[in-house]
Amino acid sequence: MVSRVLAAEVPAHVGERITIAGWLHRRRELKLLTFVVIRDRTGLAQVLLPAGTAVPAEETVIGVEGLVVTNDQAPGGAELTEADLTVLSGPACPPPFDLYRPTVTATLPTILDHAPTTLRHPLLRAGFEVAAASAAGFRAAMMEAGCTEIFTPKIVASATEGGANVFRLDYFGRPAYLAQSPQFYKQAMVGVFERVFEVGPAFRAEPHDTGRHLAEYASLDAELGFITDHFDVMPFCRDAIAGMTSMVRERAGLAMQALGATLPIVPAEIPHVHFADAMALISAATGEDLSAEDDLAPAHERWLCEWAAREHGSDLLFVIGYPLTAKPFYTHPDPQRPRYSHGFDLLFRGTEIVTGGQRLHRYDDYLAALAARGMDPAPFESYLQVFRHGMPPHGGFAIGLERWTALLTGAANVRQVTMFPRDLHRLSP
Amino acid sequence: MVSRVLAAEVPAHVGERITIAGWLHRRRELKLLTFVVIRDRTGLAQVLLPAGTAVPAEETVIGVEGLVVTNDQAPGGAELTEADLTVLSGPACPPPFDLYRPTVTATLPTILDHAPTTLRHPLLRAGFEVAAASAAGFRAAMMEAGCTEIFTPKIVASATEGGANVFRLDYFGRPAYLAQSPQFYKQAMVGVFERVFEVGPAFRAEPHDTGRHLAEYASLDAELGFITDHFDVMPFCRDAIAGMTSMVRERAGLAMQALGATLPIVPAEIPHVHFADAMALISAATGEDLSAEDDLAPAHERWLCEWAAREHGSDLLFVIGYPLTAKPFYTHPDPQRPRYSHGFDLLFRGTEIVTGGQRLHRYDDYLAALAARGMDPAPFESYLQVFRHGMPPHGGFAIGLERWTALLTGAANVRQVTMFPRDLHRLSP
Repeated sequence: MVSRVLAAEVPAHVGERITIAGWLHRRRELKLLTFVVIRDRTGLAQVLLPAGTAVPAEETVIGVEGLVVTNDQAPGGAELTEADLTVLSGPACPPPFDLYRPTVTATLPTILDHAPTTLRHPLLRAGFEVAAASAAGFRAAMMEAGCTEIFTPKIVASATEGGANVFRLDYFGRPAYLAQSPQFYKQAMVGVFERVFEVGPAFRAEPHDTGRHLAEYASLDAELGFITDHFDVMPFCRDAIAGMTSMVRERAGLAMQALGATLPIVPAEIPHVHFADAMALISAATGEDLSAEDDLAPAHERWLCEWAAREHGSDLLFVIGYPLTAKPFYTHPDPQRPRYSHGFDLLFRGTEIVTGGQRLHRYDDYLAALAARGMDPAPFESYLQVFRHGMPPHGGFAIGLERWTALLTGAANVRQVTMFPRDLHRLSP
Repeated sequence: MVSRVLAAEVPAHVGERITIAGWLHRRRELKLLTFVVIRDRTGLAQVLLPAGTAVPAEETVIGVEGLVVTNDQAPGGAELTEADLTVLSGPACPPPFDLYRPTVTATLPTILDHAPTTLRHPLLRAGFEVAAASAAGFRAAMMEAGCTEIFTPKIVASATEGGANVFRLDYFGRPAYLAQSPQFYKQAMVGVFERVFEVGPAFRAEPHDTGRHLAEYASLDAELGFITDHFDVMPFCRDAIAGMTSMVRERAGLAMQALGATLPIVPAEIPHVHFADAMALISAATGEDLSAEDDLAPAHERWLCEWAAREHGSDLLFVIGYPLTAKPFYTHPDPQRPRYSHGFDLLFRGTEIVTGGQRLHRYDDYLAALAARGMDPAPFESYLQVFRHGMPPHGGFAIGLERWTALLTGAANVRQVTMFPRDLHRLSP
């Protein structure tokens, strides 16, 4: 390896000659002095040079050998002096915007067009640290709950969630699709492991050009068997969110601080409201006639989150019992009120971040559900077979990693926290 | 939740009436007695019933309430008596082969055609436990080494590894491809985090119908910056393998035991041999003329593994310095011997399980490498841009999870340890 001290460790070496290496983050040439700031994976380190020293362009990869001295103005209270610079890789072209400025001055299209370079900005990078910690927290919570990790195929023979927004591909001369979710496979694997989780890509040929939809996203999926109903899935989902939140606190605390973002308090029991009651509350408050609605509009989600904050002091709210017509065919109905389902969403800061619920688990119920919707069971044949071989009552949920991260970090657009987003217009970089 | 004691905990409840729940794994109707074995995620539990008790079909999901008594013949030394059975979900169709038999009696096509049911067999399930532990071990080792987890797109604008075996798809009316690897993106993210890893699907329109190729597989990828050369990547790869091995020992020890499989000893430094020296050794031993070869044939990989076991007492062997012509265009040449590269493979039990190496890191070197191969740089434009903005010397590697798991568990075919394999012929379930 390139022998070096990392930026964060520089203050521990006062009085020693050391070598650091990284990107030339910033150069400031004053009349009497030249400052150089080096950026590595642990942070920033300042180097003091005589005025007139030839300094390469920003983003050049350099090594600096020098003497560590204390300086209260420098990052960590120390800086390098009497320094020699060595270019490790260069010269570098100027990045599309100044990465050393404390705020991101470029527009979102510029950031995304030049992502391999622009993501180096500490504030953009911070969002991905939060995403990575969230995924790790999800996995840790699910393993703690007795789940086994699964790896399910992303090339599939039939559209999981319905035929509309699915990508088609040529599979050795045959038509195939990109999985819209691991839904069928995670259900099947409940028959093997009872409790499973997966972190993997999901694909939606999403025609909506909004700040919260992507054509490809990271889906945090879990499914568990031997439940009574959806009320057994919700605490499991709560534990996932709590695990994500606590891992972000542990591993991405500085990133959250840099972003000025705050973590939610995840109550031991997240409050819930039935869809019908939620609609009645909104109607009563706003005068809207919502009697024909079977889903929540974004404005309703925002209203309910404000209500939950006011009534329950919670950033998080389960909405349960969505009408069956708004949910996929595999959703379990509410036996007491068959118009409604055992499906739920979790709302967070005004937006749905989790969809889940109890699933059907009997073969005949699947056939009936497909018939009731006028859907042909043939494309689902290999999926349906599992329900002929003994499947326990089960349910699960899915969290969109990018949407969660955006809401957590206060990003207005999910693309700000997606390394290389894919949407209606964007396929590269 | 269904209130129950798990099978593994039954022996701790001798003298108590408890409820267990799971799949009816086996029924044995003797003249005087009926035995029932219940399978849940923790193992098996035996239930004793009076002869003539009506017992549902195998794979039915049932609950059993009964009194726990000691019985040396029963799993864990305890069984349930005075029992009441409750069908939780049923009736079940007979599975395609008897899941209760200690060995798997079905052919591979039968297993794969009915995977949602057949994977319930404890020996098939065991392979997936090993895979899950391996992935967790890889992540833990990479985080320990200072890597950040990344999530890179699987729908891409150009073929990463060359145009031959790539899947094409319709992306909102435009042509696009499924990523053959996260290669370009993990390199780009070295510019952001220095050290990165990803666990995600990779897609190859693989025309070979062999026991070690799949059209979709889980790729364990890592990349790190500020290396001197490939000799800095190899210890990092060694740590990944050691982390995977030790997590398998910790979390899937019983699964390995059930499979009769043994873990390799991962030496502190895995031995290595240069490609040219390897070829000379094989030539000298076998009399083959290998002077025109630029890659190892499977027989050569097996020969080298036997040699490594004999000479170095190691199950693992790095072959370094493959000819540049056998490696992708982004591979760094050996400055001393430009015919050879800074690429390496790791061989394990006769087969290559890791490919890695040092990459080019200068823009001009990329242009020259593409020109030397007669490749058009245009499709790689957005990838190449990153090398104009200061990239440190870097390298990395990729491990195929299924191939690793097959070799570790002694599975003859990679499909035995792939939940729902995809190949030239198979697209479902």
